[in-house]
Amino acid sequence: MPPEKKLMQESRKIAVIGSGLVGSLLAIYLRKRGHEVTIFDRRPDVRTVEFSGRSINLAMSNRGWKALRKVGIEERIREIALPLDKRAMHVNDRPVYFQKYGKEGEAIYSISRGVLNRRMIDLAEEAGAIFRFEEKVWDIDLPGAKIYTGEDEKSTWKEYQYDHVFGADGAFSRVRHKMQRQSRFNYSQHFIDVGYKELTIPANEDGSHKMDNASFHIWPRGEFMLIAMPNIDGSFTCTLFLPFEGPVSFESLTTEKEADAFFEKYFPDIKEEISNLKKDFFRNPTSAMVTMKCYPWTFEDKVALVGDSAHAIVPFYGQGMNAGFEDISVLDDLMENYGDDWSKIFEEYQVQRKPNADAIAELSYRNFIEMSNKTASPDFLLRKKIEGRFSEKFPEKWIPLYSRVTFSDKPYAEALAIGDKQRAIMDEVMALENIDEKWDSPEVQDFILQKLKA
Amino acid sequence: MPPEKKLMQESRKIAVIGSGLVGSLLAIYLRKRGHEVTIFDRRPDVRTVEFSGRSINLAMSNRGWKALRKVGIEERIREIALPLDKRAMHVNDRPVYFQKYGKEGEAIYSISRGVLNRRMIDLAEEAGAIFRFEEKVWDIDLPGAKIYTGEDEKSTWKEYQYDHVFGADGAFSRVRHKMQRQSRFNYSQHFIDVGYKELTIPANEDGSHKMDNASFHIWPRGEFMLIAMPNIDGSFTCTLFLPFEGPVSFESLTTEKEADAFFEKYFPDIKEEISNLKKDFFRNPTSAMVTMKCYPWTFEDKVALVGDSAHAIVPFYGQGMNAGFEDISVLDDLMENYGDDWSKIFEEYQVQRKPNADAIAELSYRNFIEMSNKTASPDFLLRKKIEGRFSEKFPEKWIPLYSRVTFSDKPYAEALAIGDKQRAIMDEVMALENIDEKWDSPEVQDFILQKLKA
Repeated sequence: MPPEKKLMQESRKIAVIGSGLVGSLLAIYLRKRGHEVTIFDRRPDVRTVEFSGRSINLAMSNRGWKALRKVGIEERIREIALPLDKRAMHVNDRPVYFQKYGKEGEAIYSISRGVLNRRMIDLAEEAGAIFRFEEKVWDIDLPGAKIYTGEDEKSTWKEYQYDHVFGADGAFSRVRHKMQRQSRFNYSQHFIDVGYKELTIPANEDGSHKMDNASFHIWPRGEFMLIAMPNIDGSFTCTLFLPFEGPVSFESLTTEKEADAFFEKYFPDIKEEISNLKKDFFRNPTSAMVTMKCYPWTFEDKVALVGDSAHAIVPFYGQGMNAGFEDISVLDDLMENYGDDWSKIFEEYQVQRKPNADAIAELSYRNFIEMSNKTASPDFLLRKKIEGRFSEKFPEKWIPLYSRVTFSDKPYAEALAIGDKQRAIMDEVMALENIDEKWDSPEVQDFILQKLKA
Repeated sequence: MPPEKKLMQESRKIAVIGSGLVGSLLAIYLRKRGHEVTIFDRRPDVRTVEFSGRSINLAMSNRGWKALRKVGIEERIREIALPLDKRAMHVNDRPVYFQKYGKEGEAIYSISRGVLNRRMIDLAEEAGAIFRFEEKVWDIDLPGAKIYTGEDEKSTWKEYQYDHVFGADGAFSRVRHKMQRQSRFNYSQHFIDVGYKELTIPANEDGSHKMDNASFHIWPRGEFMLIAMPNIDGSFTCTLFLPFEGPVSFESLTTEKEADAFFEKYFPDIKEEISNLKKDFFRNPTSAMVTMKCYPWTFEDKVALVGDSAHAIVPFYGQGMNAGFEDISVLDDLMENYGDDWSKIFEEYQVQRKPNADAIAELSYRNFIEMSNKTASPDFLLRKKIEGRFSEKFPEKWIPLYSRVTFSDKPYAEALAIGDKQRAIMDEVMALENIDEKWDSPEVQDFILQKLKA
């Protein structure tokens, strides 16, 4: 995959800090436009080390695929992804039941973060990007687009000079950290009181999956929740979301006996997996989740933040990676439009993306509440049924919020605004008398049509 | 003023980072309890250098005085303060008019920040605190309560070990900066789009003030505003609050001619001062204003943040210093209650203070809007008149928000909550028909009484 200079942009010397998913994708795009690209990462090459045991499986959806397709690597990623077209709800005292995500043919795709990251680095290398692993960036000269690397913060540093520097170094970005010390830099980091832990359900002996492998499995339990997403090797990567402190919490589960009792009580339908779950529970780290917002995202035409370093979100909409990938396709559109005017590219990039990043942050935070509680409630299910039926009949008039976020590339900010309007209408619908009996009636349909006109 | 061990607390070795107002006050309190106190500051002794030209005069009010009184230094500060019992409104095309702040005898006190800081350091020294000026703290070992100082970030550092370390190092605190790198540390910094600049109106030749020296002078101009507060030397410290960018902004005033035109057009009643104002305008820096929130404020029983390092707010309620001083009186109350149980002291401190810090941040931000716009509007004046009259008649039933914040020591969070309730009532009052005619009627009075009961 040699670089093609199909578009008018002068070749620049560009550093990308961070070899994660978004950094690797950016490198591929930049190589396609003929730039010299070096990727720095303080950690070792993820292809040479064991996975961290702190990953949540990824859900690639429309925005992610679009960004991969545009740069010609979609098929190479499809190979490692499994389509999930529904939620499988594991509610105690009743059989598993299913909720379709969208229309026929619409699905999200489960991918192991580690497997995807390795593949993305392979692809970036094929595209001609240079990787410098285990080289730690400690400081950035923003106006000079210089970066400084070294063994530690106090060692002698090596200086590199670039035309542009991209911070793709995640929620705890060093690049942003430097920008943050400027005056008039707005910044917030907000941690939720729930942590998570990676657990595994291994494949059957014959390599097949132990549960339906076209479903996103959820065990909603009010204050906490377990999810499981299939991998191509027959295993499931599970994530236990649990409060850090409180009566049922990470803090309260410290002995094997406590863990046994916890899994048996709350997840009886997978109790034959307890020994695996428990092993991971005590081996894997407990991780925190943060919403991080900042602005500006760029410094002149020199430095720009992409992905989590600009907008880290909680994982409950499955949009973190998709939003990061969309940053890169938007950047590429702007390079197409503005050529060598990097000031304009960077300025437009942040102005376009910031409201959308804020919107998906808000939606993800709201879904945190919704997923643990409401996905199991009759009220929620009725709501979804009414919405679903209406949307089926009038697909032009009502795209459900989840679909607009997941299966379209309409701006997140638009999805949030329309979603709020739809929610207000549904609140009124749910307040109608005997709604549980007449939910599928022409009366309710007309009511919604009227409200949409208002 | 030798340390008195009047209360049961074992003497500890304590470092205070930052020799500003709150750090100095804390040092005095700690010395009174018999602790060994060293104050580090990266800057030189403020008593030996010229003032920065970037200060807004302070408005000492009830909470500040209370904290000074408790530690026995109130009188030493009264000497350098001037009481202001009213606002003097300078609105174009009409004579200056006055708005009383509170009841008879209630006033805020204007003090030059630099003058106060020098006095506070004198007092802390008298109390036996050791100052280490121009010694820069670069790192803090939180669990070890160790601090590291040196010439610069990469030089060889000196290590100090303490029992407790207090961060009193302001909005851009190094101590907090270290805490911020922990997981689950919530943090936000939000800059407003308005900057400020210190200007001066000098004394008359005979040392008297050029305007009324018992008033807080305001020139509200919608998008921007000038204020002036008297000093004991006959001068006024003025602050010009102005957008950074836009048609009338710091960015748009770059030449002497532009500055002349600006002052002449907007501040005609002090146009004989233009040459002084202009000199300062081009000499003094333009500063930004930030609201900074974070949590937690403490690390175990080792490290605690006080004042701006824990809760920086915009200056529009005149409560920044007062809130910081109140932190210290609360800490002292807790030392009184919990003796050597520093874990308990620090935990209670943050739990008590955090909601109040958030409340005064919110109130200060709202006042930013109110002061520039509404203080001059007839609607605002009528509102204040109705509130004032009602409060006069029923002082037990209605303490105006400003008074509750400024002239009481009720928690800020309570002031915010009651203020919101009062505002809702006043919104209804202002919507009454012919309110401008019947504002002083029994009908309106009864209306408010009814609403208060609801």
